[in-house]
Amino acid sequence: MYIGIDLGGTNIAAGLVDEKGNIVIKDSTPTLRSRTFQEIIKDMGVLVSGIMESSGWSMDEIKGIGIGIPGVCDNSKGTVVFANNLGWVNVPISHELEKYVNKPIYIDNDANVAGLAEYMLGAGRGYNSSITLTIGTGLGSGIILDGRVYPGSHGVGGELGHFIFDINGPQCNCGNKGCWEQYVSATALSTMAQGAVGQKGGSLMLELAGGKVERIDAKVVVDAARKGDWVAIEVFDRFIYYLAMGIISIINIFDPEAIIIGGGVSKAGEFLLEPLKKKVEEHIFYNQLGWADIKLAQLGNDAGIIGAAMIAKG
Amino acid sequence: MYIGIDLGGTNIAAGLVDEKGNIVIKDSTPTLRSRTFQEIIKDMGVLVSGIMESSGWSMDEIKGIGIGIPGVCDNSKGTVVFANNLGWVNVPISHELEKYVNKPIYIDNDANVAGLAEYMLGAGRGYNSSITLTIGTGLGSGIILDGRVYPGSHGVGGELGHFIFDINGPQCNCGNKGCWEQYVSATALSTMAQGAVGQKGGSLMLELAGGKVERIDAKVVVDAARKGDWVAIEVFDRFIYYLAMGIISIINIFDPEAIIIGGGVSKAGEFLLEPLKKKVEEHIFYNQLGWADIKLAQLGNDAGIIGAAMIAKG
Repeated sequence: MYIGIDLGGTNIAAGLVDEKGNIVIKDSTPTLRSRTFQEIIKDMGVLVSGIMESSGWSMDEIKGIGIGIPGVCDNSKGTVVFANNLGWVNVPISHELEKYVNKPIYIDNDANVAGLAEYMLGAGRGYNSSITLTIGTGLGSGIILDGRVYPGSHGVGGELGHFIFDINGPQCNCGNKGCWEQYVSATALSTMAQGAVGQKGGSLMLELAGGKVERIDAKVVVDAARKGDWVAIEVFDRFIYYLAMGIISIINIFDPEAIIIGGGVSKAGEFLLEPLKKKVEEHIFYNQLGWADIKLAQLGNDAGIIGAAMIAKG
Repeated sequence: MYIGIDLGGTNIAAGLVDEKGNIVIKDSTPTLRSRTFQEIIKDMGVLVSGIMESSGWSMDEIKGIGIGIPGVCDNSKGTVVFANNLGWVNVPISHELEKYVNKPIYIDNDANVAGLAEYMLGAGRGYNSSITLTIGTGLGSGIILDGRVYPGSHGVGGELGHFIFDINGPQCNCGNKGCWEQYVSATALSTMAQGAVGQKGGSLMLELAGGKVERIDAKVVVDAARKGDWVAIEVFDRFIYYLAMGIISIINIFDPEAIIIGGGVSKAGEFLLEPLKKKVEEHIFYNQLGWADIKLAQLGNDAGIIGAAMIAKG
């Protein structure tokens, strides 16, 4: 058995996971990220203890603990090098957690971990290479090549959200301009929608957001577009175009067997997937030899726990 | 011994290459690309025979022939699927060449082949992963991961020239808009320079091009910039900025150990490399864990022959 921990900016989720990647039991606790890392990591220990107690399994049966980190980490040192969302720099997470749980600890980026989970147990099963895009607040990516998470040489690769997609585009929090993430994320979708409503006025989106422009989020856009609101449809079409053109870039770069769409925005389901596949087909450069299957992620929020457990399995 | 053939739009170059990748003897012949593929491939056979005769080696000592193709190819079928420059679609190159040379034939994309040569014998020696950018008429790329050419799943990956770099950018011949190649290639550099001279007038570039704007090519830009012509300097700076931002994208995607700059534009040498490295350092997102070494290619035009021979070595 393994324990997988999904460390997020809002919640810490953890689960007891069997060899096959099934979650036996899971639980979560608020991150309360303004606290010191010592306090947060202590709560991770408490969470794990609680899960083990309720599970009826003994700690002796746990072979290892994996943690998905919302940032850059160095597994060899057990250190979170940088996690913007948590305000962490060089946090010795493994060392700190060992105070509470005496097990081997493995860490990796959360998007890598989610990509691994989809590859092993979700939409990526049966493919030798897959790239999972987690479209949430930001745009994360987990690259699986030859059946393994592609780590890069310095542990900082696989950031598909940060290739330059518009050299003259808006400022990104990475310091550069026009990163793909600025066009494809829940944040980008809501920003586009808020702008469109501000410009064009009257839209169902405003109504669904209780009359407050700043409350128009990705879900509101999708809901309004489904109901035929033309401003929302236009915004969502544009979003799909940006997603498609980035996916074509990924195909031209990696030519993977599968591209998997996860994260909050993927909850739009077929309403997103169908026009997306059409748009990719329309714009792809070279189609004679075929290209990646484009699919929706299957594991939802559990991908974080399952993938983290799988890195502990190794 | 192996034979490496570098099939280009202008010339066919071939060489006899030893196990270690040294060229023993080489020769070339014009492609005359308006001819049928049968005629062109026959000339490849004649070229190989001529080289063998002058070399003093016997055909029995040749273990295989490798060919670098300016396009997409399917090695398993020995077919050039698509080569824009030659106007080839589904050309059975291996089958056709076997009429003249009875040896195992291997084919791969020319930029992959050049990347392999640099990895094995040039600027990429000692690195486990490297990406070679061949900046010529277009922008080719050869991706080496874990010591092997990264092939993609459908044989069409590794086209770094065709990730979207400017979603609102100029038309690319791949059908999409704003591919990186539209900003980083000898063609792009000369187009920028011609535009700048058209707008700003008086530049040493015009003089070096014999007074004809349309004769301003990449070499003219570099020569004029070296001599302090401010219009040329501005254009070359902009080119370097585009190259740097694309390299940062590659680092964020692949995080390779080395990035190697080859092709005609790389002849600018340190005049290109030094400001390029500075620009990358200035704009890189995450620098604490280090990033790829950026180097000039070392094999020049021979990379095509050597790399082709190396794919025959396998």
